[in-house]
Amino acid sequence: MNFFITGGAGSIGSYLAEYLVGRGDSVTVYDNFSSGRRSFIKDLTGESNFSLVKGDLLDRAELEKSLRGHETVFHLAANPDIRGSLTKPELDFEQGTVATFNLLQAMKKTGVKKVVFASSSVVFGLPGVIPTPEDYGPLRPLSLYGASKLACEGLISAWTHCFGFRSWIFRFANVASPRLTHGILFDFTRKLRRDPRKLEVLGDGRQNKSYLWVGDCVEGMVFGLEHSPGNAEIFNLGTRDRMKVAEIARLFLKASGSSAEIVYAGGRQGWPGDVPKMLLDVAKMERLGWRAKYSSREAVEKALGVKQAVGA
Amino acid sequence: MNFFITGGAGSIGSYLAEYLVGRGDSVTVYDNFSSGRRSFIKDLTGESNFSLVKGDLLDRAELEKSLRGHETVFHLAANPDIRGSLTKPELDFEQGTVATFNLLQAMKKTGVKKVVFASSSVVFGLPGVIPTPEDYGPLRPLSLYGASKLACEGLISAWTHCFGFRSWIFRFANVASPRLTHGILFDFTRKLRRDPRKLEVLGDGRQNKSYLWVGDCVEGMVFGLEHSPGNAEIFNLGTRDRMKVAEIARLFLKASGSSAEIVYAGGRQGWPGDVPKMLLDVAKMERLGWRAKYSSREAVEKALGVKQAVGA
Repeated sequence: MNFFITGGAGSIGSYLAEYLVGRGDSVTVYDNFSSGRRSFIKDLTGESNFSLVKGDLLDRAELEKSLRGHETVFHLAANPDIRGSLTKPELDFEQGTVATFNLLQAMKKTGVKKVVFASSSVVFGLPGVIPTPEDYGPLRPLSLYGASKLACEGLISAWTHCFGFRSWIFRFANVASPRLTHGILFDFTRKLRRDPRKLEVLGDGRQNKSYLWVGDCVEGMVFGLEHSPGNAEIFNLGTRDRMKVAEIARLFLKASGSSAEIVYAGGRQGWPGDVPKMLLDVAKMERLGWRAKYSSREAVEKALGVKQAVGA
Repeated sequence: MNFFITGGAGSIGSYLAEYLVGRGDSVTVYDNFSSGRRSFIKDLTGESNFSLVKGDLLDRAELEKSLRGHETVFHLAANPDIRGSLTKPELDFEQGTVATFNLLQAMKKTGVKKVVFASSSVVFGLPGVIPTPEDYGPLRPLSLYGASKLACEGLISAWTHCFGFRSWIFRFANVASPRLTHGILFDFTRKLRRDPRKLEVLGDGRQNKSYLWVGDCVEGMVFGLEHSPGNAEIFNLGTRDRMKVAEIARLFLKASGSSAEIVYAGGRQGWPGDVPKMLLDVAKMERLGWRAKYSSREAVEKALGVKQAVGA
């Protein structure tokens, strides 16, 4: 198979690229390196079935040229800095919604008609049902990131119906990856560097969310793509369990060998737009025959452990 | 009250402007006249509580300048030519999604924080439950128009949560208005002019949808705005009944005094992206104390009748 991965140098995309190249598929990574890093894909450079394009999804000409001839797109590119969009709403809009529109237009022009999309549990907003199934409604995202993921789902749905595309949408739980460029573990690292005696945790520490190991995330997407025959599939991708932010903070300090004091900023939400409770209903993927190997706690521990090993 | 109506010269917006001006509210209509018409608002020109700005939502400077000082926005502007977006996907994207993003940014900048949004039943795609309630999921729009409405709902939801906005989203059934610039009655008129002996009807004629009289639509929105205290409301706005496209064709020919032969193009959908069966669950508006005065058939008859009277 022959894959085009947008955001393929990012904290999830680079693992996906490794996985696919490792099993012999042809992979093109398309990344603007706004948050992806060359170091994440350095082991792939030189592999005959791997190629890299430094390109932006807002650059239509480059995108069309690079996309031509591919079979399936994994669309993972997005602004990963969810909180940052509070001050720069145009980031999520341009790098999420406009970028996805451009990608779909380029796919239509070049005849590439299969798309796997990295959506998120945040499209559910504050769901009234937990664990939340794929068909839950209404969809009322709290953050600009969530609004963008929902907009992209809608665009993909319309393209599927109007232009004969096939699509697989995966709504991720929080993905725990050692290749951090944003998110709670990244924030913790930065804060502890600034002040080794104190770790400020946003919210009251009782935010309770599901974490998915990045390797499980990658294998789940590929399994879903290869085992579901529909032309407009949606799957939740997560673990059966969740963990509290307070526990993550304790694990983090332990892994860092730190005795810093944990200080809670207070409030139910970590920030406006934060979803404090999240657990996805993963029965649909289980019925398909797939289940995450690692629990939320194991996922976070692996992300912390590997992170230490590479000395980040 | 002091209202800003985007798309206020359109087939729904112009009725809303009339209604609000008529009861003494201050109204600014903001319209680029891409589908709105000056003739629709000519009776308002000269009223002291009415003003008109010819402006585009993509023109941020003009938008901010015009918006400043208003209290509540009715956001009705959109590309009304749903089928046309099959050949020009950028129309719905730019005039729907990008325009709405610009509007929300302009509202944030100018401190205008109440928005009423004209969404649509098409966000539901092909719902598994009919009549379809507001909390139905998943939301899988079939058309680019539907994708844009869903994207706008998500943006408004995020703005509400992140920036202290209050929002009222109304998902309309098909709106029957004598001021036609698109849609089934407009298509019929055009076709009959071209060939008075034959009326081609898209689909098999069994598409079965709910039609809402434009006056009911306008009064329903204003009622919902003034009687629901939440900061993120969603309401279906429609009738309790629906009617088949074949019946609309017969009514149309009768109202036109035509004896043309009805010819069905065939197929369940009128076109790719068409939703063939649509009936909204309107219990939530009814619990609030509001119900449409006219049935689907009456709405279509009124649209046809007034249309004859004005000689269109």
